[in-house]
Amino acid sequence: MSGLVDQILAATKGAGSILAPLVRHTPLIFSPGLSELCRRPIYLKLENLQYSGAFKYRPALFNIIQSLDEAREFGVVTSSSGNFAAAVALAASQHSVRATIVLRPSASTFKAERIKRFGGEIVYCPDDYLAREDHVQVLARRDGLLILHPHDSLLTIAGDGTVGLEIIRDLPDVGAIYVPASGAGLLAGIAVAVQSLNPAPEVIGAQPEANGTLQLSLQTGVRSSRQGITTVADGLTAAQPGKLGLKVAQELVARVATVSENSLTRATGLIFEHTGQRVEAAAAAGLAALMEGPRAPSDIKTVLVLTGGNIAPQTWAAMVSS
Amino acid sequence: MSGLVDQILAATKGAGSILAPLVRHTPLIFSPGLSELCRRPIYLKLENLQYSGAFKYRPALFNIIQSLDEAREFGVVTSSSGNFAAAVALAASQHSVRATIVLRPSASTFKAERIKRFGGEIVYCPDDYLAREDHVQVLARRDGLLILHPHDSLLTIAGDGTVGLEIIRDLPDVGAIYVPASGAGLLAGIAVAVQSLNPAPEVIGAQPEANGTLQLSLQTGVRSSRQGITTVADGLTAAQPGKLGLKVAQELVARVATVSENSLTRATGLIFEHTGQRVEAAAAAGLAALMEGPRAPSDIKTVLVLTGGNIAPQTWAAMVSS
Repeated sequence: MSGLVDQILAATKGAGSILAPLVRHTPLIFSPGLSELCRRPIYLKLENLQYSGAFKYRPALFNIIQSLDEAREFGVVTSSSGNFAAAVALAASQHSVRATIVLRPSASTFKAERIKRFGGEIVYCPDDYLAREDHVQVLARRDGLLILHPHDSLLTIAGDGTVGLEIIRDLPDVGAIYVPASGAGLLAGIAVAVQSLNPAPEVIGAQPEANGTLQLSLQTGVRSSRQGITTVADGLTAAQPGKLGLKVAQELVARVATVSENSLTRATGLIFEHTGQRVEAAAAAGLAALMEGPRAPSDIKTVLVLTGGNIAPQTWAAMVSS
Repeated sequence: MSGLVDQILAATKGAGSILAPLVRHTPLIFSPGLSELCRRPIYLKLENLQYSGAFKYRPALFNIIQSLDEAREFGVVTSSSGNFAAAVALAASQHSVRATIVLRPSASTFKAERIKRFGGEIVYCPDDYLAREDHVQVLARRDGLLILHPHDSLLTIAGDGTVGLEIIRDLPDVGAIYVPASGAGLLAGIAVAVQSLNPAPEVIGAQPEANGTLQLSLQTGVRSSRQGITTVADGLTAAQPGKLGLKVAQELVARVATVSENSLTRATGLIFEHTGQRVEAAAAAGLAALMEGPRAPSDIKTVLVLTGGNIAPQTWAAMVSS
């Protein structure tokens, strides 16, 4: 393993110890119905039940705890399509930290409401993924705010990776893990965390076709970006993979599958039908990838990470009934 | 406390140790939305995520483990409206025990399918709650089968009570717990388990008006029964409370509220809207009781036990959209 992977693995183990009493160890449930459908044993990691309703609470909290004095003195700032921002707002308010959240005007109003309810202060920027990051830099320089990156930092990836630590603890003979991906922080974190298993399970990314930048970056070796991404999976709209996530993916990720909008919608409905969980479309990307792929029978125990459940009930209902 | 309560408490603590590594410690989630609606802090105990999809897996497994040699030699038999039966079928098949399940023809076909999938052998009896119990006795005498009672036995109530042990571990300052009730096994088990807290939280039963036998029994002091109960909460159709459950309820339960069919339906929808969980109507009885009661603001931390999620998706959809 490379030095980077070693470094992330050490940080992830640290995050695991620190976060264990503070985050929810979410259930890993076996689904007989989805197993039948996918012709292999399917387990779902219910991060939709994480505090803040998404796995992002883990890296948000870890970032804040690791720099608590600085965060309390200056406050923190982040940008995100919603789930990381809400998680930062929640973790910050729990630790008496002021959180500023930079959103694009096109961000889901449901997610914006959640950020406000958790006590975050929203600042809107021009409707452009890269402009959003510039805006964060400007605020940080002006007011001394501590920048928390939603996917491209060691601490964030280490916090993300604690999902992987729980998976291998609960299912030591897991053979494959499907992870929704765009910035690739969670994908990288899980891929690193499971390296402590021997043999390490295959880790597969699942990304909307409408984005596809991670898959393209892996194919070409060049970090690609794309503007104006529109997908039903509003949690997977990073305009490009993170630098760290891409490096790790190049080394440890088996492949990244892209999935159609129809598959995302259909998979979201199937998850509800078979497990009774309402999740956001991003969370269904792993199942969508499995459904689109060849489905030869297999006994590989396969985990799908359900990354979050933050979708307005009406939006969800309109989507799955369409 | 009476001798009976002491005896159940000891058995429940035993069940807690034995079952801890074998059942799912289900999440207790805080719901901001339901808290706002009910004007008090609301926590949901997600037993719909228990193995077998309902809390009944706990008592089913505990019964089988406690008499494993006998169960393996002769097999077990039970009757139930569905959730206990499915749990027995699952726990039995996991421990190489043959399970015979006596069902009324009116039992939910969804639940019957689950029993078969888990490896249970179904025998139908006349469509009458009391006839079902006679049928169990006949089979037991004829074939030597071990009878597992869905609610009226010490072992079952002790297994049920482990739900209460988890609640007080996760929320030591819980002030009130709402428990769906008809046979009153879970209600009794939880009421006993939480006696180890000081002050012990109020435990409140919630029963469909269409049944009402537990409430009536508590009011009159006489164990009442009722035939031909029809309710959307098909898990709450015991024709009478259990003898043990009633005794415990007389001593430890604050009150039993009855709820209308409309409230059950509405509460099932609200649980989905605010938490993204598809539960069966029986599981919504606690929320229904809270919604029907006076809603003065309070800071009492209140737990609603979501007992199960075993409902056909189509049935659920028709119900919540009605």
